[in-house]
Amino acid sequence: MPYQDHSPAEIDQMMQAAREAFPVFRNTTLKQRADLMRAIARELEAGGDELIRTAMRETNLPEARLKNERARTQFQLTSYAEACEAGHWLEARIDTAVPEKGDPDVRKLQVALGPVVVFGASNFPFAYSTAGGDTASALAAGCPVIVKAHPAHAATSELVAEGIRRAVAAAGLPAGVFAHVHGVSNEIGKTLVTHPYTRAVGFTGSYGGGKALFDWANQRKEPIPVFAEMGSINPVFLLPGKLKASAKELAGQLAGSVTLGTGQFCTNPGLILGIEGEELNIFIKELGDAIEKSAPGTMLHPGIARAYGEKRQAALSQSSVETVAVAATAPAANQGVPTIASAKAEAFFKNPLLHQEVFGPYSLVIRCADGDELVKAARHLEGQLTTSLMATDEDLKKHPALVEAAQDICGRLILNGVPTGVRVSLSMQHGGPFPATTDSRFTSVGADGIKRWVRPLAYQSWSDALLPDALKDANPLGIWRMVNNQLTRDRI
Amino acid sequence: MPYQDHSPAEIDQMMQAAREAFPVFRNTTLKQRADLMRAIARELEAGGDELIRTAMRETNLPEARLKNERARTQFQLTSYAEACEAGHWLEARIDTAVPEKGDPDVRKLQVALGPVVVFGASNFPFAYSTAGGDTASALAAGCPVIVKAHPAHAATSELVAEGIRRAVAAAGLPAGVFAHVHGVSNEIGKTLVTHPYTRAVGFTGSYGGGKALFDWANQRKEPIPVFAEMGSINPVFLLPGKLKASAKELAGQLAGSVTLGTGQFCTNPGLILGIEGEELNIFIKELGDAIEKSAPGTMLHPGIARAYGEKRQAALSQSSVETVAVAATAPAANQGVPTIASAKAEAFFKNPLLHQEVFGPYSLVIRCADGDELVKAARHLEGQLTTSLMATDEDLKKHPALVEAAQDICGRLILNGVPTGVRVSLSMQHGGPFPATTDSRFTSVGADGIKRWVRPLAYQSWSDALLPDALKDANPLGIWRMVNNQLTRDRI
Repeated sequence: MPYQDHSPAEIDQMMQAAREAFPVFRNTTLKQRADLMRAIARELEAGGDELIRTAMRETNLPEARLKNERARTQFQLTSYAEACEAGHWLEARIDTAVPEKGDPDVRKLQVALGPVVVFGASNFPFAYSTAGGDTASALAAGCPVIVKAHPAHAATSELVAEGIRRAVAAAGLPAGVFAHVHGVSNEIGKTLVTHPYTRAVGFTGSYGGGKALFDWANQRKEPIPVFAEMGSINPVFLLPGKLKASAKELAGQLAGSVTLGTGQFCTNPGLILGIEGEELNIFIKELGDAIEKSAPGTMLHPGIARAYGEKRQAALSQSSVETVAVAATAPAANQGVPTIASAKAEAFFKNPLLHQEVFGPYSLVIRCADGDELVKAARHLEGQLTTSLMATDEDLKKHPALVEAAQDICGRLILNGVPTGVRVSLSMQHGGPFPATTDSRFTSVGADGIKRWVRPLAYQSWSDALLPDALKDANPLGIWRMVNNQLTRDRI
Repeated sequence: MPYQDHSPAEIDQMMQAAREAFPVFRNTTLKQRADLMRAIARELEAGGDELIRTAMRETNLPEARLKNERARTQFQLTSYAEACEAGHWLEARIDTAVPEKGDPDVRKLQVALGPVVVFGASNFPFAYSTAGGDTASALAAGCPVIVKAHPAHAATSELVAEGIRRAVAAAGLPAGVFAHVHGVSNEIGKTLVTHPYTRAVGFTGSYGGGKALFDWANQRKEPIPVFAEMGSINPVFLLPGKLKASAKELAGQLAGSVTLGTGQFCTNPGLILGIEGEELNIFIKELGDAIEKSAPGTMLHPGIARAYGEKRQAALSQSSVETVAVAATAPAANQGVPTIASAKAEAFFKNPLLHQEVFGPYSLVIRCADGDELVKAARHLEGQLTTSLMATDEDLKKHPALVEAAQDICGRLILNGVPTGVRVSLSMQHGGPFPATTDSRFTSVGADGIKRWVRPLAYQSWSDALLPDALKDANPLGIWRMVNNQLTRDRI
């Protein structure tokens, strides 16, 4: 490894610096924070080809994908900066005094929690790593950020961290606003999550990793929130009318989604469910043909390739599972081979192994006997990031119980679309019931992600001159506020 | 006890009924839910004198207080009903498709989590019990509610529960929308919190009780959120300018707040901090005089009276603590005797027992050597519901570090006011950093309490006719929505 693990003493120093920077940083204006975020976006751009080449070398991801991901990361920073300045996330509420009832003046807004620890993801070296969505949203909230770099792309992370440090310094802010931790050992994660100054944690990765952080955080003397995104098999339900009308088209769409980025997305469709019959057979045949023609891809790092090989093999070796298709081209070292398998619903109900995520270009088609089994399967599923219904409006009307069940298990319900591709927008929900994430009430994509790092603070009978600008009578920030239960931008 | 503990099998039946009622109840309109809440408020009124007399007998609280509390509970129900219909809590967000960028149409709103278990509080037989704030806000969100009655006022709770059942039946809703559990054993709490159908928990009570629920909830296969309010000593800082100008007045205000309701409020000011000197001596003398003249009050139940006696004695027996004043009238059985004690800050820093809540009419005055010790004391404190600063504007300008530290430790920051008296309004924050509550990001008072029982769900490329009304193009509910990052009530 090019970087030594940071020691507990070094981490403690970083946390001390973050704690000291916090009162300064939370008292910056919204514009100052937005400017910092825009400066970090420019630093990503300034990283130029060196940044892309470093990421290519470390992750095996192709140049075009990495350039796209960098642009997406810049968009996250600049769009969350805009949201930061617009101030809706402050949820400013004012109830003026009603002396005759003895009601005091009370005003509330969201305030930063304190130092936030972010664990970079292996599969998004930019968008969910050092300057990714968690970092951007925590900075918007006014929280210092301590990033734990993913060791699989430590050099890329270090280049990005240097850019953030330059932006922080140029803004005249304390260096403690941002820190960057290298490490391979799990102990480093524990040190960060259990540090008394850590106030919240963001994580994208495996169930085992996220659940360990969650448990450490809850066992602290003072528990803290952990927002861990821990994987999902993103079920896709094929309803009869739609399947009849478009079996081939659906097969093509899903083949593309299963193999996109060598299947290394948390939104990869790992489970496809339909009702047995001629149309489903056509769909399976077409999907299999497309997968046979697809090419194996080099995975992010040897550990991921090995895990894919093992989990894929474990699934295929179940007696109830039949292999439908495997890419015809033989895989090279560390490549993931696109694979489609199939099983009956009754096997799926009995065998929990078939519910597990196989992280890579793999999907399992479940053949249900009828619509009731489709609903039963939906109710049987654990929490998911997404659920897709491939359905005509007529299908949806005929299967209300499936629509109900689908809502219960996911954070994003997609009609006639594949789960891969996550729009960065305020309306996005990237999060879902446990075990997809540890907290279904928050999103890690879109400006609502800022809400993870704040809590409400009410000021009672406070002097106007000493109130935060967001709550002053004159509304100097010009933000929308709830004043005596009415939404308004007016001054009081 | 007049009520037998419900058995695990009976509780399982209630949870089954709640699970079955959930799809029906969450699909009711906002108006239907608001009407149900208003009907429950009317049932409280219809409970008439019998309800008040039953509560008086069970809690020893005086008639006027109970009538006020019932009116407050009705106001909670009707004001949260209004908030339910206004729909701000739905946080509707719409981002329309941008085909040239490949961005799909995405629309998001808050949806109900599922069955909610509410533990009634001993000290508020109406406002934080069967038809209290937790129940009202969960019903507004569309969640079935299972109330665990506090055994200290089980008959009062049963009368209220009968009213809720009548209101549910009159609305034509499934009976499973509401259930009422009696029980003394802690096992019942565990059964409720660990039941697979329970999706969230509300609690008001002791640290021991709340923390046990929190731990059970996090150790589930699928962890669920617990909103436990677990007590607070609500520090009051006396700043020099204000103390100099109004020592006597402050003493009178605080004597009233300490003894209000025999000190049985979670917002009771259990800690008062000032800088040593002549003014503080005058304040302590005046406060002591007022406490000597105050009357002991009968506490809610013998267990609380006993606990108060023990904790008060433990505090007073510390060698560093001096007793300032005790009510002159001798207490009768189960009465709490108003008491003021005092200690130096250095003793407070060394002795964690002095940080503990003594639930009842007791307060400890901490004498700091100077302003730095005042700040040090603020930083030393655990999370609180409230913090009060008795200060002139000049004081606040001179002590910015104290203002910073005060913000860090509480959910509500009060200027020149006592912590008792919690306004029921949208701007209220009743919640604070751990251990005041298990989740500082939510409030248990005010319509924002509805947010505890919901999570976001995004609909991608969904058919307009099948979207929830809140997200339809035509905006049939007429609610405020974020459409392409702009707040508007317009149709799309």
